[in-house]
Amino acid sequence: MPGGAGAGRSVPAAADTAGELGEFGVIERLTGDRFQPEPVLLGPGDDAALVAAPDGRVVATVDTLVEGVHFRFDWSAPEQVGRKAVAANLADVAAMGAVPTALLLSLACPGTTSTEVLDGLAAGVWDAAADAGIGVVGGDTVSADTMVVSITALGDLEGRAPVTRSGARPGDVVAVRGDLGWSAAGMAVLRRGFRSPVAMVAAHRTPRPPWREGPVAARAGATSMIDTSDGLLADLGHVAAASRVHVDLSSRLLPVADKLRDVASALGGDPLGWALTGGEDHALVATFPSEDVVPDGWAVCGEIRAGTGVTVDADRWGGAGDPGWRHWR
Amino acid sequence: MPGGAGAGRSVPAAADTAGELGEFGVIERLTGDRFQPEPVLLGPGDDAALVAAPDGRVVATVDTLVEGVHFRFDWSAPEQVGRKAVAANLADVAAMGAVPTALLLSLACPGTTSTEVLDGLAAGVWDAAADAGIGVVGGDTVSADTMVVSITALGDLEGRAPVTRSGARPGDVVAVRGDLGWSAAGMAVLRRGFRSPVAMVAAHRTPRPPWREGPVAARAGATSMIDTSDGLLADLGHVAAASRVHVDLSSRLLPVADKLRDVASALGGDPLGWALTGGEDHALVATFPSEDVVPDGWAVCGEIRAGTGVTVDADRWGGAGDPGWRHWR
Repeated sequence: MPGGAGAGRSVPAAADTAGELGEFGVIERLTGDRFQPEPVLLGPGDDAALVAAPDGRVVATVDTLVEGVHFRFDWSAPEQVGRKAVAANLADVAAMGAVPTALLLSLACPGTTSTEVLDGLAAGVWDAAADAGIGVVGGDTVSADTMVVSITALGDLEGRAPVTRSGARPGDVVAVRGDLGWSAAGMAVLRRGFRSPVAMVAAHRTPRPPWREGPVAARAGATSMIDTSDGLLADLGHVAAASRVHVDLSSRLLPVADKLRDVASALGGDPLGWALTGGEDHALVATFPSEDVVPDGWAVCGEIRAGTGVTVDADRWGGAGDPGWRHWR
Repeated sequence: MPGGAGAGRSVPAAADTAGELGEFGVIERLTGDRFQPEPVLLGPGDDAALVAAPDGRVVATVDTLVEGVHFRFDWSAPEQVGRKAVAANLADVAAMGAVPTALLLSLACPGTTSTEVLDGLAAGVWDAAADAGIGVVGGDTVSADTMVVSITALGDLEGRAPVTRSGARPGDVVAVRGDLGWSAAGMAVLRRGFRSPVAMVAAHRTPRPPWREGPVAARAGATSMIDTSDGLLADLGHVAAASRVHVDLSSRLLPVADKLRDVASALGGDPLGWALTGGEDHALVATFPSEDVVPDGWAVCGEIRAGTGVTVDADRWGGAGDPGWRHWR
């Protein structure tokens, strides 16, 4: 249930933990007294929120982060975790070619969670939402042994057809926009106990998906699109399966950043492996009917052929690195 | 991220646990291969779903259940937990006067969770969704030590204004539709190690909110509405605070079921206390400008006056029972 300003309970003046704040105090802390932009017709504080859906349809997606699985507070500040949770959702909305309109936040956490952590998390969520011009319209808070942050994002297609995973056709080109392998490189850095290069570490802590580019690609005529949450190869595998096509990437054309190569040589990692298999960057990868229509800033890095599966330089990828992130391994 | 049919991974033939199924196998199990009703323009299997929002606005709410806090598998079958999670959301949508259009499901669970539990949970969620004529359009699955079931519900107001908590006015009557205190009575029964009366136990395991009555009340001119998730007194406290009015209930008019009285006398409980303070029934309570417009089947049980707070027979409730459910107590 969304809660907040209208919840009718007073927040203890000097609460130090979620338990002391109580359910409504936490919801107030997470969603109360914030600016709600125009698409929000009714924000937190009632049984449900009401959000504009201008084109008569609404894009909806949910993404969940678990402490110890998706984030660690010794590696990431609460503000960064909040931003990360929003980033994944904005990328999913963008990958349909839609613009985001609102977020809903569900937070499960122990009663011992400090108000500092709650405030940091809320600041990260709201900052990321504000960057996207949207608000958090509803929230639910429950007690649990582990912190679980679940965010639902809503979006609007502005009258366009959704760009799905199933529209790639032989002859299309593959193009990518955003960081590839940066989050994986950042995690490798953190695992070694280092804190730099800062850009890579920041990319792991808070990916910055190029979510504004989703609608740009849609307007340019993208035939399919996905965000790289599980890694480029794994996510293009979804496109290949859904579109019943073969995706062939060119290692020469893949945008492997110089910084990624530097980190790889320092740590003994494989920059191409990170770029192909690193997850959680939330870059956008799309197919276009021809190179001519690919928007500025997108890197053409492959093509769609008849067949199945994903290859690199027409071969199966045999390099180092997980074939995408999976849970429970 | 919604996933499912297009995820492009094969499900192990004889998986026994979530860990063996893997992330995409679990998502497929929870959302794949089901009937999606008409409002669903694009179901699970892409980065996001697409749902019709006929009136150009969308109602949205999120509700989260945690194992050990909101449900216990020794008291409830997985199917009942699934139904319960959906019920709470449908009640929130109904309390705005809206009809539900779609659900999104986020499931955090240990890798050791059995496929039997997953299938039962999915069956409960889908059965409850089917009863409401809607589908589960997206899902996310992550590993966590504790099971956390988070459901987002979307709804449509059919062109009406939302019925909020803030519209009650002095002179309005208060009316309730649905069970009061049944879930609390059922929990008291289970705590004593009993399994009957079946109706009360069933009400605790799977509340059946009268969610179809939300739009009925809205069409009849309800001025405010809420569902009794925290207990009648606590939830009317939200209405009193948001509307800046005094709510006075009449103990004589409150619909206290004979079965509730029977259980109370058997266990030494207080039936009025359960009806006033028991949570999780997800009954609907609304205010109407006059008794004449209260829809059939709703029980008039109080009135709105100038002032603040909630009273019973013009007095503060001093009986037994928690003032509504709170976390972290």
